[in-house]
Amino acid sequence: MHKILTLSVLLAATPVAAAPPSDEVGFGVVEGLTTEVGQRLAGTDAEARARDWGLRRLKALGFANVHIETFDMPVWVRGAESAEIVAPYPQKLVLTALGNSGATPESGLTAEVVGFASLAALEAAPEAAVRGKIVFVTHRMTATQDGSSYGYFGAIRRNGPSIASRKGAAAILIRSIGTDHHRVAHTGVQNWSGGAQPIPAAALSVPDAEQIERILDLDRKLTIHLVLTPRMTGMHQSGNVVAEVPGRDAAAGLVLIGGHLDSWDLGTGAIDDAAGLGVTTAAAKRMLDGPTPRRTIRLVWFGAEEFGGFGGEAYAKAHARERHAIVGESDFGGDRVWSFKTTLADPKSSLVGRLESALAPLGIGHDSGPAHGGTDVEPTAAALGTAIIDLEQDGTRYFDIHHTADDTIDKIDRAQFGQAIDAWTAMLRVVANSPEAIDPVTRKGGE
Amino acid sequence: MHKILTLSVLLAATPVAAAPPSDEVGFGVVEGLTTEVGQRLAGTDAEARARDWGLRRLKALGFANVHIETFDMPVWVRGAESAEIVAPYPQKLVLTALGNSGATPESGLTAEVVGFASLAALEAAPEAAVRGKIVFVTHRMTATQDGSSYGYFGAIRRNGPSIASRKGAAAILIRSIGTDHHRVAHTGVQNWSGGAQPIPAAALSVPDAEQIERILDLDRKLTIHLVLTPRMTGMHQSGNVVAEVPGRDAAAGLVLIGGHLDSWDLGTGAIDDAAGLGVTTAAAKRMLDGPTPRRTIRLVWFGAEEFGGFGGEAYAKAHARERHAIVGESDFGGDRVWSFKTTLADPKSSLVGRLESALAPLGIGHDSGPAHGGTDVEPTAAALGTAIIDLEQDGTRYFDIHHTADDTIDKIDRAQFGQAIDAWTAMLRVVANSPEAIDPVTRKGGE
Repeated sequence: MHKILTLSVLLAATPVAAAPPSDEVGFGVVEGLTTEVGQRLAGTDAEARARDWGLRRLKALGFANVHIETFDMPVWVRGAESAEIVAPYPQKLVLTALGNSGATPESGLTAEVVGFASLAALEAAPEAAVRGKIVFVTHRMTATQDGSSYGYFGAIRRNGPSIASRKGAAAILIRSIGTDHHRVAHTGVQNWSGGAQPIPAAALSVPDAEQIERILDLDRKLTIHLVLTPRMTGMHQSGNVVAEVPGRDAAAGLVLIGGHLDSWDLGTGAIDDAAGLGVTTAAAKRMLDGPTPRRTIRLVWFGAEEFGGFGGEAYAKAHARERHAIVGESDFGGDRVWSFKTTLADPKSSLVGRLESALAPLGIGHDSGPAHGGTDVEPTAAALGTAIIDLEQDGTRYFDIHHTADDTIDKIDRAQFGQAIDAWTAMLRVVANSPEAIDPVTRKGGE
Repeated sequence: MHKILTLSVLLAATPVAAAPPSDEVGFGVVEGLTTEVGQRLAGTDAEARARDWGLRRLKALGFANVHIETFDMPVWVRGAESAEIVAPYPQKLVLTALGNSGATPESGLTAEVVGFASLAALEAAPEAAVRGKIVFVTHRMTATQDGSSYGYFGAIRRNGPSIASRKGAAAILIRSIGTDHHRVAHTGVQNWSGGAQPIPAAALSVPDAEQIERILDLDRKLTIHLVLTPRMTGMHQSGNVVAEVPGRDAAAGLVLIGGHLDSWDLGTGAIDDAAGLGVTTAAAKRMLDGPTPRRTIRLVWFGAEEFGGFGGEAYAKAHARERHAIVGESDFGGDRVWSFKTTLADPKSSLVGRLESALAPLGIGHDSGPAHGGTDVEPTAAALGTAIIDLEQDGTRYFDIHHTADDTIDKIDRAQFGQAIDAWTAMLRVVANSPEAIDPVTRKGGE
């Protein structure tokens, strides 16, 4: 029998396998989820396998009170997806359906394209310009360290489909909400609002969107044939995986941290968000292996974040009576932490000062703007008034990869990933052990 | 009627549209071919449309003797292509068929995978280890400025399928012969040799190949379901598009330059090889617009290079009686020229000295190694003993993109592209006008 192990024997280690020992726990989570499960679309069997994998791994790491808390959600799944320019220059296009997209007939639909340079231009267009056509909306999103360009340009994905539908469009194609130039399209959720009926809604890869722009700019009539056959499959089970580092003082309140277990179905969800699970799990494991902290640290691998935060809502409902001291989430890739924000009532408190002192050696400054948490911890903070801490990761390359087939483990930069684990560990040491009470706050600013 | 021109009005120019005027002719060729034709697979209708486009454009630019020279070739076309891991960890894979790949049944085939870390390991394997299995061959190709790693690692694609077939493999999957980490696979030609029967042969994207490596390294039995339905469609027409800058002295021999018009069918063939056509066409146009050169410059847009140089063979056969002074080809992307090589008999001749003086100001040094030409001009050089000049382009990022869906116009770096045009122009001024005879040479070294 030929030994398949010659692969590991004969090949030098891959870059991703050259592990600094300090992040073995964290990287092990990323490698296990992305290799042994792969994509983990919310509410599917794959996400259930990921929960089982998480349960086993978190127990094996020695965490306390490891269990799954299930909930139900409506599940959307991708079908066939293809598109081609019929005229004036026949050629295939690369695209992918947006979450909750409607479907074309199985044989597809063919329609003329009407192009818009912005969401505002689509909003301003008369219905007569849109009815029966394939709407195309483009933009010029560029990379930003704090990811703020996603908030602004992402409105095209979030709101464009409903606006196009209400004006009678046959379908909508958007330029991917992404900052790369690869033939991989960026999916993402959108919800039908304002009475909009589902229509086919998809994102073109950036090079394909630029191809459409070039052709429209030639003032040629552009016709596209589009096939998208996603469908809603009804209510199915999702769930959160919960684990704890027991503290000494139950009355001091919980420190809630985590990321999300589900991923989009195109890549293997390495940066979104196996990385966040890896970072927070590795930091929690260091706390577990050190002196018992004052506060219990609760680590949650949230389910079904991508379709609108079902896991975070379910957690907030299930744990509404528990005292939470502070919440924080890691859901912005595997790159380095470069600043932190909080919603602590007193930004000059000694707790904030100790956070500054603990994080500055890692190159992390204090940004006085308010923390926003993340989709998964936000409902808890909103319901209980709990303080939030954000460890802001560098998002410069995040939207090159986000929600694409390219979200794979090779995108993890081990040095930056290790720094993020160090940052979370330093933060946990401060907040889990802080002697003063961390009371609910009235949140300021922000969403 | 809603104005689709709002796209150009409202949007800032895209990076690729911010043209230095000096390369408008060259970039116009790239933009036109990639936008108005798109992919141009050899022997297909798309390649014929590209010839027609080329004929019109070269005439419009004012070249002399613009015409098409046709030839016939066997044509292979891609079909459906998909693959998934059945066990141990079900998930989809990204791959693409290699040129001349055989087909699976329409419903696909399912088989166990046997992995090899190199072509040598596959060659050494007993038939019993391979028979009925899906062979997987991986490697560690990395980027090189001169592209030499493609020659070595490319043997896996060129020879692996035939070796696997002769050992009775059900199919072969290789790690893409590429240096990127995107979920886009690299196709490329291979020919069945040594009595090998066609089997399904495909390249996995690099991240997918690394996923296979990780699973094999866990020593788990790996089973893949594979669907590939390409087919041979018989003999069809391809052709070369020819244009000339007339010279003063027909007896001095032709300067033959060009690139290839066909492309793989996954991208739009921007760097491979619309860029080469753009560079050589722009340089020839500058010669056309300047003083009449001594030698006629013949510009050829060769057809059907990717499947084995059918256009170059047809040209050599059709023009075997014409005196050629020197040949050169641009088929290595759109990045800067960093060195030049020749096969001129006397490397210290005054002609070589004048080339050194003309190219050095562009940062281009003289590499004393022998030139190799390119697939399209090599048959002419071999048949007539014609001297070759290579203007070596920087290949550091070429194999990130080569033969993938990512080969699109946004990958052209306008500054480097402009330098390459300057280099070709400087070279043409020297060789087309050199007063001494440029005689056939006995080639030294090389392939």
